[in-house]
Amino acid sequence: MALDAGAVLIIGGDGFCGWPTALHLSSIGHAVTIVDNLSRRAIADQLGAQSLTPIASPPERLAAWSRVSGAHIDFVTLDVAQDYDGLAALLDRVRPETVIHFAEQRAAPYSMKGPTEKRYTVDNNINATHNLLVALSSVGLDAHVIHLGTMGVYGYDGDGLEIPEGYLEVFLKGPSDRMLSRRILYPTNPGSVYHLTKSLDQLLFQFYARNDGLRITDLHQGIVWGTQTEETRRDPALINRFDYDGDYGTVLNRFLIEAAVGHPLTVHGTGGQTRAFIHIQDTVRCIALAVQNPPARGEPVRIRNQMTETHRIRDLAALVARITGAKISFVDNPRLEAAENDLVVSNRSFLELGLKPITLSDGLLTETLEISLRYADRCDLSRIPAQSLWRADMAADAVPSTAITA
Amino acid sequence: MALDAGAVLIIGGDGFCGWPTALHLSSIGHAVTIVDNLSRRAIADQLGAQSLTPIASPPERLAAWSRVSGAHIDFVTLDVAQDYDGLAALLDRVRPETVIHFAEQRAAPYSMKGPTEKRYTVDNNINATHNLLVALSSVGLDAHVIHLGTMGVYGYDGDGLEIPEGYLEVFLKGPSDRMLSRRILYPTNPGSVYHLTKSLDQLLFQFYARNDGLRITDLHQGIVWGTQTEETRRDPALINRFDYDGDYGTVLNRFLIEAAVGHPLTVHGTGGQTRAFIHIQDTVRCIALAVQNPPARGEPVRIRNQMTETHRIRDLAALVARITGAKISFVDNPRLEAAENDLVVSNRSFLELGLKPITLSDGLLTETLEISLRYADRCDLSRIPAQSLWRADMAADAVPSTAITA
Ligand SMILES: NC(=O)c1ccc[n+]([C@@H]2O[C@H](COP(=O)([O-])OP(=O)(O)OC[C@H]3O[C@@H](n4cnc5c(N)ncnc54)[C@H](O)[C@@H]3O)[C@@H](O)[C@H]2O)c1
Ligand SMILES: NC(=O)c1ccc[n+]([C@@H]2O[C@H](COP(=O)([O-])OP(=O)(O)OC[C@H]3O[C@@H](n4cnc5c(N)ncnc54)[C@H](O)[C@@H]3O)[C@@H](O)[C@H]2O)c1
Repeated sequence: MALDAGAVLIIGGDGFCGWPTALHLSSIGHAVTIVDNLSRRAIADQLGAQSLTPIASPPERLAAWSRVSGAHIDFVTLDVAQDYDGLAALLDRVRPETVIHFAEQRAAPYSMKGPTEKRYTVDNNINATHNLLVALSSVGLDAHVIHLGTMGVYGYDGDGLEIPEGYLEVFLKGPSDRMLSRRILYPTNPGSVYHLTKSLDQLLFQFYARNDGLRITDLHQGIVWGTQTEETRRDPALINRFDYDGDYGTVLNRFLIEAAVGHPLTVHGTGGQTRAFIHIQDTVRCIALAVQNPPARGEPVRIRNQMTETHRIRDLAALVARITGAKISFVDNPRLEAAENDLVVSNRSFLELGLKPITLSDGLLTETLEISLRYADRCDLSRIPAQSLWRADMAADAVPSTAITA
Repeated sequence: MALDAGAVLIIGGDGFCGWPTALHLSSIGHAVTIVDNLSRRAIADQLGAQSLTPIASPPERLAAWSRVSGAHIDFVTLDVAQDYDGLAALLDRVRPETVIHFAEQRAAPYSMKGPTEKRYTVDNNINATHNLLVALSSVGLDAHVIHLGTMGVYGYDGDGLEIPEGYLEVFLKGPSDRMLSRRILYPTNPGSVYHLTKSLDQLLFQFYARNDGLRITDLHQGIVWGTQTEETRRDPALINRFDYDGDYGTVLNRFLIEAAVGHPLTVHGTGGQTRAFIHIQDTVRCIALAVQNPPARGEPVRIRNQMTETHRIRDLAALVARITGAKISFVDNPRLEAAENDLVVSNRSFLELGLKPITLSDGLLTETLEISLRYADRCDLSRIPAQSLWRADMAADAVPSTAITA
């Protein structure tokens, strides 16, 4: 426990990934300030789709954490996309060593619902990121920015070549057909407006790293599964979100709740989509490793793939069916995406930093299933189907009953 | 003159490129509607830096055009970045065949002035573009979108390889070192927040072309010089903008006004920067060619380089000095950019469509010089120096007295 670990500002620290990260960094000695506008809670109300687990209010959460850990976490309610002056003043006051940026609308189906949600997602996510970068350069604060990106920026039309960590070596035909080697940002192929915003974020980071010398780590995260971490288990008021609705529920957690309530596991299309996964406990560990390993000033944006394993969706469904006895049902796919794809991803950089991946076989699947069973009476089955169509002309009767990825 | 040419909506049609485009398309038979929020005029007031040429109000301009041409142009005052509903309703009412999108904050130095201008540029430009794309897909209008991008997205760190039109052929190392060919969007390297927004726009276009089948042409335009076109010459009230201030003045026009008022031509750094240029008359012709050659539905975004020649800045200065007898003064560069670069650009696609480029040698340089001389008494010398520093820590005494590019 490093008692003089640096101050950390966690933007979006009330959310599914941000909250356990805040607790973990607090537990290892960082002075933590959470910034959040509570928009995730507001969207849950708007959708009428609450976390399966009961989420305490911010004051209750913080009080519980003080009680069990003796540590204090600050909480500032602020919209970083809209209140630039508030954000800049806060940065200047706290002067954190690290800013971790989770504050984006992160559900792909929500981002495709209609004009309002498309526009909100772009406006919120781009201005949140850009305000942070402008504020750091204007306040003159050399804080390390850690941003949560997504594996989805790479796209899933992969040809089986390994996806590198952000940068790709390519060759150009030069004079007299000599091959010239170049290192480029991996060309993105985002599959939804949400994923698109992460591709846009990448270009913002490239520019501000180059022009203003900002130190930035972008974590291209896989689909997060699980609910609890070491720290959220310490008190019922610390419990983490478990979203299972058609917008925010991600595939594995949603199979688990479907199994718990006796609903067939709904697989989109053939289930041939391969995706990358990570357990929430590893999310938290990876972010701590990223905090401890900032790039030097003047270095290019450091991109790390934050995932531990890949699975084909129908194999995941089969695994959950095997453990639980649930049935599998194949439904039409509301997304425009490749029906089948391979996915080979490098995650060397976290392994080199010492990450010991938690995999699906590690028993946490049954812990997550237990949570699904414990709160099954809070489940509203009508919230499970995804209502967003990727394209206006997709037949309404093709609306399927689950969404694949975050 | 095609009398039944389709209806065209021109967003940003009150500006330097948009206004002569509107007149030209009207003159060849298109029903033209201009949409503009007059923000360019407001920024000129805010900066206290007016066009060298006196710009009539929109009603005066439209009345003059009716008088000389007999044609009517509609004008709607609307902020496309902020009033999504107004934009969607307008698209639905006019149902244009083509939408030409000029409506962005386009000055690189202005975009680097400070937090307010950085944030305004990103917020305005991204939401303008995104609102248009969302509105088209939501209204269900299969209009051809023509967007004005910039050569600046390619970056100017070039190694002398020819810059293709938007897409680059690269090779990847596949299994057993076999080289696999891929066609990717040219990796961007924007040199200012303004240029950055054009890189972001590109990703928005890629997504909406793919997901919603929108038909999009993105024109990567060089630095525009000159003032008048065939149509703007027809009446004094139709005269086009001539910006020469440190924010909006682009390099060649600014050399010409410097020469006209007896000020030395201020060259940044060594003047070794090579840039691409196009005369405003060719801008207008290129856009008409783009209107007549839309991509088919389902095609990828069509990217065309809209430029006719490249010049090294010090050569341009020497050329203007030779014609006018002006002196040249080398000053510190406020921008972060390569001191010297080569630039080889493909503009095959417009040449193939029949463009006959107007070059600097074509006498229009002296027309532009004559306009500078005619209005020299309107010139405010104090507005010429660029006040924006690319980076906060650039010494204030390094503030130079001109800006290189748009
Ligand atoms: N959950 C996943 O499977 C997953 C996978 C890959 C990447 N990510 C990324 O990780 C990050 C966090 O995801 P999550 O699952 O915790 O999402 P979440 O929605 O639970 O948390 C995001 C938090 O940010 C807050 N927020 C949003 N906009 C804000 C603003 N303008 N100002 C202040 N606060 C704002 C929300 O209120 C919420 O508490 C996101 O950027 C997401 O894209 C998540
Ligand atoms: N001038 C050049 O040298 C040059 C070079 C390359 C590319 N371009 C591009 O061409 C386009 C036009 O450039 P220009 O020189 O005519 O610029 P300009 O500033 O003269 O014209 C832009 C027009 O758009 C309007 N506008 C801006 N935001 C708007 C909004 N939200 N809603 C409605 N109207 C809005 C402004 O009022 C202005 O009339 C720009 O996108 C620019 O980036 C220009």
